[in-house]
Amino acid sequence: MGIEIERKFLVKDDSWKEHADDGLVCKQGYLASDRDKTVRIRVMGEKAFLTIKGATYGLSRSEYEYEIPVIDAEGMLQFCATAPVEKTRYLIEHVGMTWELDVFMGANAGLIMAEIELDSEDQPFELPAWAGEEVSGDVRFYNSHLAQKPFTRW
Amino acid sequence: MGIEIERKFLVKDDSWKEHADDGLVCKQGYLASDRDKTVRIRVMGEKAFLTIKGATYGLSRSEYEYEIPVIDAEGMLQFCATAPVEKTRYLIEHVGMTWELDVFMGANAGLIMAEIELDSEDQPFELPAWAGEEVSGDVRFYNSHLAQKPFTRW
Repeated sequence: MGIEIERKFLVKDDSWKEHADDGLVCKQGYLASDRDKTVRIRVMGEKAFLTIKGATYGLSRSEYEYEIPVIDAEGMLQFCATAPVEKTRYLIEHVGMTWELDVFMGANAGLIMAEIELDSEDQPFELPAWAGEEVSGDVRFYNSHLAQKPFTRW
Repeated sequence: MGIEIERKFLVKDDSWKEHADDGLVCKQGYLASDRDKTVRIRVMGEKAFLTIKGATYGLSRSEYEYEIPVIDAEGMLQFCATAPVEKTRYLIEHVGMTWELDVFMGANAGLIMAEIELDSEDQPFELPAWAGEEVSGDVRFYNSHLAQKPFTRW
């Protein structure tokens, strides 16, 4: 098990582009999603993962992740109640930390969000110039919530 | 992915005991359980598994199973909405086939059920003398249902 501690921000301009990698297309669906846990199937580039997360306390969440065959993930995405969330994920190095920046597509087009994983809730980090409003803990921006209530329908 | 095809019977007497192995204690909980899929965490003896099954069509069901560390399974059982289903599972060889016989404990005490996995829905097999009423497809006897509505509360 790992503990996931993350902070999440909206992205306010395009200046991140000059620092980003090539990005990986990512597709994810949820077999379960409630206050107590989520079960996520994710295909990212040529890899796939099954991830189980517990309830969120503050900024922290227990997380179990297993790499699985892509063909399994594609099969299990069919079991999900909603269409998968699709996005391109870019990695951006900034002052010794790696940011994950997601440009959403399809029903969530228009949403761009970046997050950073921390080792502790009070770990200091430097905010990039392109980072806007913080949305950590705002359930509307959980990917599991975006699967049920996509951004274009807010 | 595998396709799980199984038939399931109540057990009407104790004559299975002379043919059974030593049995393994088994504890399982559900992270998701509805008509379209189940996500099961199982600890059986010294091993643990994460199993995702799709909807049942006839006697058949798509199934994906991954072995995981027992410590992960114990952690994820905490995320389940209901107490785990507990049983001892015995294996019994009968006319070239292996039956799995479950003696339930705790909230499902009193229930004894045996199942056989088939390669096709019409595969013939010989019914052991201890096999009683067939309950294949009866949702009340699904382990996921027993987690929510245990046998002693029927």
